[in-house]
Amino acid sequence: MNRQITLAARPIGYPKETDFKLVETPIPKPDDGHVLLKTLYLSVDPYMRGRMNAARSYAANVEHNEVMVGGVIAEVIESKHSHFQVGDIVNANIGWQEYGVSGVDGLRKIDPSIAPISTGIGILGMPGLTAYVGLLEVGKLQDGENVFVSGAAGAVGSVVGQIAKIKGCRVVGSAGTDEKIDYIVDELGFDAAFNYKNVTDYQAKLAELCPDGIDVYFDNVGGQITDAVFPNLRVKGRVVICGQISQYNLEKPETGPRFLWHLITQRARIEGFLVFDFVDRHADALIQMAEWITQGKLKYRETIAEGGIEKAPAAFISMLKGGNIGKQLVKIADPS
Amino acid sequence: MNRQITLAARPIGYPKETDFKLVETPIPKPDDGHVLLKTLYLSVDPYMRGRMNAARSYAANVEHNEVMVGGVIAEVIESKHSHFQVGDIVNANIGWQEYGVSGVDGLRKIDPSIAPISTGIGILGMPGLTAYVGLLEVGKLQDGENVFVSGAAGAVGSVVGQIAKIKGCRVVGSAGTDEKIDYIVDELGFDAAFNYKNVTDYQAKLAELCPDGIDVYFDNVGGQITDAVFPNLRVKGRVVICGQISQYNLEKPETGPRFLWHLITQRARIEGFLVFDFVDRHADALIQMAEWITQGKLKYRETIAEGGIEKAPAAFISMLKGGNIGKQLVKIADPS
Repeated sequence: MNRQITLAARPIGYPKETDFKLVETPIPKPDDGHVLLKTLYLSVDPYMRGRMNAARSYAANVEHNEVMVGGVIAEVIESKHSHFQVGDIVNANIGWQEYGVSGVDGLRKIDPSIAPISTGIGILGMPGLTAYVGLLEVGKLQDGENVFVSGAAGAVGSVVGQIAKIKGCRVVGSAGTDEKIDYIVDELGFDAAFNYKNVTDYQAKLAELCPDGIDVYFDNVGGQITDAVFPNLRVKGRVVICGQISQYNLEKPETGPRFLWHLITQRARIEGFLVFDFVDRHADALIQMAEWITQGKLKYRETIAEGGIEKAPAAFISMLKGGNIGKQLVKIADPS
Repeated sequence: MNRQITLAARPIGYPKETDFKLVETPIPKPDDGHVLLKTLYLSVDPYMRGRMNAARSYAANVEHNEVMVGGVIAEVIESKHSHFQVGDIVNANIGWQEYGVSGVDGLRKIDPSIAPISTGIGILGMPGLTAYVGLLEVGKLQDGENVFVSGAAGAVGSVVGQIAKIKGCRVVGSAGTDEKIDYIVDELGFDAAFNYKNVTDYQAKLAELCPDGIDVYFDNVGGQITDAVFPNLRVKGRVVICGQISQYNLEKPETGPRFLWHLITQRARIEGFLVFDFVDRHADALIQMAEWITQGKLKYRETIAEGGIEKAPAAFISMLKGGNIGKQLVKIADPS
């Protein structure tokens, strides 16, 4: 049998485990041109919270009793397409389930010789690509600029900060535990960082840690930390909106200070993006990041929940609350 | 004697006439390479409100007892530079005064054969250029897109909407009187418009008037009208921040709903700009707009305060409160 996690109820505020349901269905059969996949690692990501809502989003949202969406690392266990063989390890989008059938368009083969296969949904997958294209293509980062990253210890933020360091920038980050702060400064080489739970005046803290102002702000978080960036933005500054995790689980939408006038005085830009809009850059980005990993310039950490598919809801909720350092994964099975 | 308007007090909220002071000084003498100018028309513009504050702005703010900044149309009455002759009509930045000395770098000769000289600080001056570069260079307007303009009957907004119509776009505007709404629809050819003082649910009104959503929003106003744009923004939408006049005269900063998450779902961009950052486009833009005026494709209206320099504060305050249709000017003197 195939075990799946479906959406049982649309969450109000933070999701609860009861918003999900574990169901069993027969293992599907692949049609011609398709493959049957066995999930090894499941990715849980902030964007999935949006898919649980009924509200408009950039993709079709998950309906009641539908399998939760998501990327996986999987093993091909039956192939009806000549490009994929049994035993191949692939990145696929079959959602929160142990087995799934996929066409080959969304499949990407993973080379286990470069890095552990789990990185294919981490630093060498969607989160790493998000950091890369967001910082370089949307943020148009220039060598030597001043960069601030919120959510800096997460799967995306930790890569953003390191790429900026590789580009010779001065990098400051924020995160929510002292352990994360130590990690991004001591292990990843950020120039400075602060634990936002221990700071009350974010604007003053940013002015202190970014004395020359901020050229590029990579925003994973939104809310009050983002408010504090605008008065610290340099002329021609860029604010890259990657995520707004502080806002996803509010029971009532927040209000905040109006800040658009800063964009006039600073001739600044705010821009949101989706990694899928930059598919033409993905192959080059993966080659570059794999090289940086091999050279030891790009480091990563994973927070892996063990215990199979039934642990996915708890791992997802924990990630939304900042329980992870680096990429949050759920281990579903070992490769054969 | 030369009569000048200086800053007497930094305003709290809307400026009052007592925040300004009329002073008399001797008419200055031009050094070599300079000209002595006699002001004919003075421009009063929303940006001047920011210069009256002590807060950080993109340009040095006006200090107590300094002459208020601003652009003028003036006549050269004494020249110590070979490029300018007595009798030339020029656009200059000598501020709120009857006479002023200027170097020649900031001077632009006005050709009275194209349009009345007053347009040199209006549709064929800073406001017209602001509309042109903001819509085309910052907004990257494409033919046939859906455009919304706030402050649509003002010096900038009225030009924005007409350029968008020339580019084959569908154009909706907002303004604050029924007379302005009639003007922009009946005379300027906007497809639809609404008086924001008679509408409570801006989001629903925009959804009604822009049923296909908004590709480019040209924002002169900020505040609640701007809030209502984000849920109506199309994918790859652009929000051009030109002004935020609703915010300039608040005694206490406003808060508003957070909207940055819309930029992710819509992969949208918000960008502020200053017309001075596009000087390399100004000459071409003026040629193009003069041609459109000659062809009858681009219309304009001016609201001219009569009575000389002492009427400038009242005209400025009236403009901040929406008293003008098209460009607000103050007539200072007739040409000789």
